[in-house]
Amino acid sequence: MGSKKAVTIVKIGGNIIDDASELKQFLSDFSKIEEYKVLVHGGGKSATKMAESIGLVPEMIDGRRITDVAMLDVVVMIYAGQINKNVVAQLQASNTNAIGFSGADGNLIQSEKRNHPTINYGFVGDVQKINTALLETLISNNIVPVFCAITHDKKGQLLNTNADTIASELAISLSEVFEVTLNYCFEKPGVLYDAEDNSSVIEKMNQELYAKLKTEKAIQSGMIPKLDNCFNSLTRGVQKIKIGHHKMLRDDKSICTSIELSKN
Amino acid sequence: MGSKKAVTIVKIGGNIIDDASELKQFLSDFSKIEEYKVLVHGGGKSATKMAESIGLVPEMIDGRRITDVAMLDVVVMIYAGQINKNVVAQLQASNTNAIGFSGADGNLIQSEKRNHPTINYGFVGDVQKINTALLETLISNNIVPVFCAITHDKKGQLLNTNADTIASELAISLSEVFEVTLNYCFEKPGVLYDAEDNSSVIEKMNQELYAKLKTEKAIQSGMIPKLDNCFNSLTRGVQKIKIGHHKMLRDDKSICTSIELSKN
Repeated sequence: MGSKKAVTIVKIGGNIIDDASELKQFLSDFSKIEEYKVLVHGGGKSATKMAESIGLVPEMIDGRRITDVAMLDVVVMIYAGQINKNVVAQLQASNTNAIGFSGADGNLIQSEKRNHPTINYGFVGDVQKINTALLETLISNNIVPVFCAITHDKKGQLLNTNADTIASELAISLSEVFEVTLNYCFEKPGVLYDAEDNSSVIEKMNQELYAKLKTEKAIQSGMIPKLDNCFNSLTRGVQKIKIGHHKMLRDDKSICTSIELSKN
Repeated sequence: MGSKKAVTIVKIGGNIIDDASELKQFLSDFSKIEEYKVLVHGGGKSATKMAESIGLVPEMIDGRRITDVAMLDVVVMIYAGQINKNVVAQLQASNTNAIGFSGADGNLIQSEKRNHPTINYGFVGDVQKINTALLETLISNNIVPVFCAITHDKKGQLLNTNADTIASELAISLSEVFEVTLNYCFEKPGVLYDAEDNSSVIEKMNQELYAKLKTEKAIQSGMIPKLDNCFNSLTRGVQKIKIGHHKMLRDDKSICTSIELSKN
């Protein structure tokens, strides 16, 4: 078997989506990545704003937002429509041959409606299967896939899906055929020892340290699903994972958190 | 040169989009078309409803709706998001390997912002160029492209574009590599002699008859741009064009209007 080609997967969150000049800078940096690449974007505040402006009251159960039919409609419009198509148009302007996808397109990401014993999350999907063959064909044809966080159940139902998980599942699937680097970009410079101190970046995070920090309750709760996704991805074949501010894409020396498996 | 493979392009309008059971029936019929196929969908009333519900007042100049920034945002959300992704998910449920596209995706349809001497149409695009090579690759890989009526200018700007024109430009472009049949589906059984009488279908329409009916002002004004598109497409290589109710897709004997070039 020959050596695998490299793919860089970048996930960006709402903070970049919501700031036009940050987004522009990010897309310019992203378009300069020379190897094969994939973008996954979160939603930002525009879905909430739209929901409010049409009079939807977000349904919350135990502090969790529930995706009812009306809210699903809004996230599909905003994520797959407004955000995805504007990102694609901007990338095309930088000569990056982007195509925007939901998981329904080409059956690229099939998920299952979450079936929780006590909480009805509504139209939320957990990723089941990636169409790796089609994704490989697209990428090998120099297409740059741009995914929003909408998937489907292959029975006609669209489902709201966590963007971090989509990035991680795409990375795992693509690691069968490519050497995959996964970058989670967010507003902080990395995983922090002290959530209030941006200079306290943990530059190398492995499972041992993660377990220790969790025991000490010294890790921000919001980071836990992200880090769980990361270690899951590394265990299942992803080569390299970094978490940090998106400037790490243009500056190799920019501080960020590298996620690593513990050496046994 | 070997014989070309066949592609059927179907354009559906808002009347089908707005009626869930009609849409379901149509998509079931469409998914049964055995040759390569492409779907182009219009918008329906949901963009207008959404615009109203967020308090937008449609700007009209000389009876024409102007696509200002806010309205563009709405049509992108509704056409490329809500409608396109739901149609794709439904087709996937019928094992039709659909991918939804705006013209920005893969730079498939590049357009130019309309520059009219007296009317500022706003963010409306006139089609300039189809990425035939990518479209051919997708179709030959058994992908069923589903286009919404949004294009881009390749400079980062999305543009609202007439869906009939998109269907016709796609048909012309694909006729370079495929034998193309173009079907315009709408609420009527075809082009009518008498707009009030659904039994007055003109079964064969050629340029001679069209010129005659125009002179006699015996053609509904809404049909004129559609028919102009049709004759333009036939002149530029499209093999076959039909206008009628979408039941013509499942029933060969269903009455409809065939558009034909006049024999010289």
